[in-house]
Amino acid sequence: MDLSSLLDKIKPLDKDVMREVQKRLDNLTKPIGSLGRLEEIVIQLAGIKREMSPKVDKKNIIIMCADNGVVDEGISSCPKSVTATVTINFTKGITGVNVLSRHAGSDITVVDIGVDAELCENGIINRKIRKGTDNIAKGPAMTREEAYQAIITGIQTVEKLYQEGVQLLGTGEMGIGNTTTSSAVIAAYADAPIESIVGKGAGLTKEAYINKIDVVRRAIEVNRPNREDPIEVLTKVGGFDIGGLVGCFLGAAIYRIPILIDGIISGAAAILAIRLHPLVRDFIIPSHGSAEPGTSLMFQIIGMKPILDLEMRLGEGTGAALGFHIVDAAVAAYMQMGTFDDANIEKYVPLE
Amino acid sequence: MDLSSLLDKIKPLDKDVMREVQKRLDNLTKPIGSLGRLEEIVIQLAGIKREMSPKVDKKNIIIMCADNGVVDEGISSCPKSVTATVTINFTKGITGVNVLSRHAGSDITVVDIGVDAELCENGIINRKIRKGTDNIAKGPAMTREEAYQAIITGIQTVEKLYQEGVQLLGTGEMGIGNTTTSSAVIAAYADAPIESIVGKGAGLTKEAYINKIDVVRRAIEVNRPNREDPIEVLTKVGGFDIGGLVGCFLGAAIYRIPILIDGIISGAAAILAIRLHPLVRDFIIPSHGSAEPGTSLMFQIIGMKPILDLEMRLGEGTGAALGFHIVDAAVAAYMQMGTFDDANIEKYVPLE
Repeated sequence: MDLSSLLDKIKPLDKDVMREVQKRLDNLTKPIGSLGRLEEIVIQLAGIKREMSPKVDKKNIIIMCADNGVVDEGISSCPKSVTATVTINFTKGITGVNVLSRHAGSDITVVDIGVDAELCENGIINRKIRKGTDNIAKGPAMTREEAYQAIITGIQTVEKLYQEGVQLLGTGEMGIGNTTTSSAVIAAYADAPIESIVGKGAGLTKEAYINKIDVVRRAIEVNRPNREDPIEVLTKVGGFDIGGLVGCFLGAAIYRIPILIDGIISGAAAILAIRLHPLVRDFIIPSHGSAEPGTSLMFQIIGMKPILDLEMRLGEGTGAALGFHIVDAAVAAYMQMGTFDDANIEKYVPLE
Repeated sequence: MDLSSLLDKIKPLDKDVMREVQKRLDNLTKPIGSLGRLEEIVIQLAGIKREMSPKVDKKNIIIMCADNGVVDEGISSCPKSVTATVTINFTKGITGVNVLSRHAGSDITVVDIGVDAELCENGIINRKIRKGTDNIAKGPAMTREEAYQAIITGIQTVEKLYQEGVQLLGTGEMGIGNTTTSSAVIAAYADAPIESIVGKGAGLTKEAYINKIDVVRRAIEVNRPNREDPIEVLTKVGGFDIGGLVGCFLGAAIYRIPILIDGIISGAAAILAIRLHPLVRDFIIPSHGSAEPGTSLMFQIIGMKPILDLEMRLGEGTGAALGFHIVDAAVAAYMQMGTFDDANIEKYVPLE
């Protein structure tokens, strides 16, 4: 499949529908605009779905799982094998994203896009590109061909969920070392010192943290990724999980399904997806700002603000799952609130 | 009833239970602390309820409704009569808080604590102190006796819900002019210029906004409220709605029910409640940071950070209703996630 012909399928939000939705919102029994970002979300959903009454009942979080060669540099507090173990645990229903997606009425889709283990559990979709990337501190993570393959995998995953009628998507990931690769991707786009991007991931000592900063610096120096070429950035300092998520964001725009960012890793993927096609941004909804310092830079780069501030750093898609509640609430307010006619009240319009 | 003997019933959170909950959280299959503020919320709930498995299924948002004499100064974009109309609409199920509380599985309790109208609709609890306060730009809002009465009303409202088995409370309000009174309360505690506290409420022109700043300044100058005496602050520049909410926060601490702040108005009440008894703070959970500029000052004063950033300015309890989803999710994660024993995995402990 050819990526550029897929990208040609991405069309703008439907401005006419959005205007109509705005009118309907302005006729609900509340001061104009007083539901703030809930209103923005509803307008965005309507523009994506090209309908006045957008539905978000059928939800799914796509969890891209892959290993990262950069773990050899000692940048993680836990061994590489945790990637495989947690990926398997997604099928047992006991992880954070299992509980929080269930709680939000969402299914999950677990994709092995590059875990360094043979995984044959039911519930894990095998789209393994390779058993983990190469060490970005020493050279490119993957070949350009593999980067395309990861992106196409993400798009195809969304295509399948689209065919199943999924109305709202979340992103998630599992991959020991992927806060390092994400930081490197963000470093390629942020005009900021690397210390301000790199965080302690799931939990690092001070010494290990200093090492992690050094590793990201080396990854950038060795690879010199060209930010004008997002595929090159992915190839050189990304990961299969990030590549798969880039495809998820592109697929969401192609198949017109709103999609939530989870944390820094899916946010790094969002940066690349938006660089590949600027309209992709309009299909994305932020969820929480994670405890990783690079997260706020990531949001700056894509020009968004998180909805939730919970200082989480679990990943997996847990932030997206929590964000689903707010999207649901936005739609409920829009669909169920009374109008001024119902309410026997004059519109609350500023006295201009 | 004597307020100080009621306040004596407030006891600290149960540190032993909190420690046990922390242990259980640390044994869930996630990096230590990685659920961030969700973990803090669960620990707080357990400390409040003195149990390892705190339940928050039965929820209620208390909506204190009252008029404010300061409306005579032209500080609101809508007429005073909107207070009564919206209070009645709460009983029709069509307002923002109706929809969002229902969506969060919560009931509401509508209290007429001072609406300037005869309200006899089913579903409105009549605890009217008087038909609206006096104009704070010219003198005190109420008598000290009335301030006590408003607070006791809030405490008694919580007592009744406690007897009905309510496990989680939210705060809400309806009262045209109450962003002005709240701003005046916050001004009494903030060491900040009044322009940085006062916002545009539900929607104001620039001229009306400048007037509102002036009104708050006059309210402070005329009344000179002594911040060391929270009852005096309430008496002089508060409102019956704010007083009722002060009582709700105190009641929540007395009856050990976690309670969510909604926006700037209930936040102003939270400041006063915490000044009346510092332990009250431990029973409070923030929800969203509203679009009102004084909200961030309010959070600074009480030393909290909002969970949600939605730029809402509807009030009514809509922010608290949205916050309920996050509290629910926190409990779900804690109760349903697997442990390291289930997960066949080493604890993710930093390599220290």
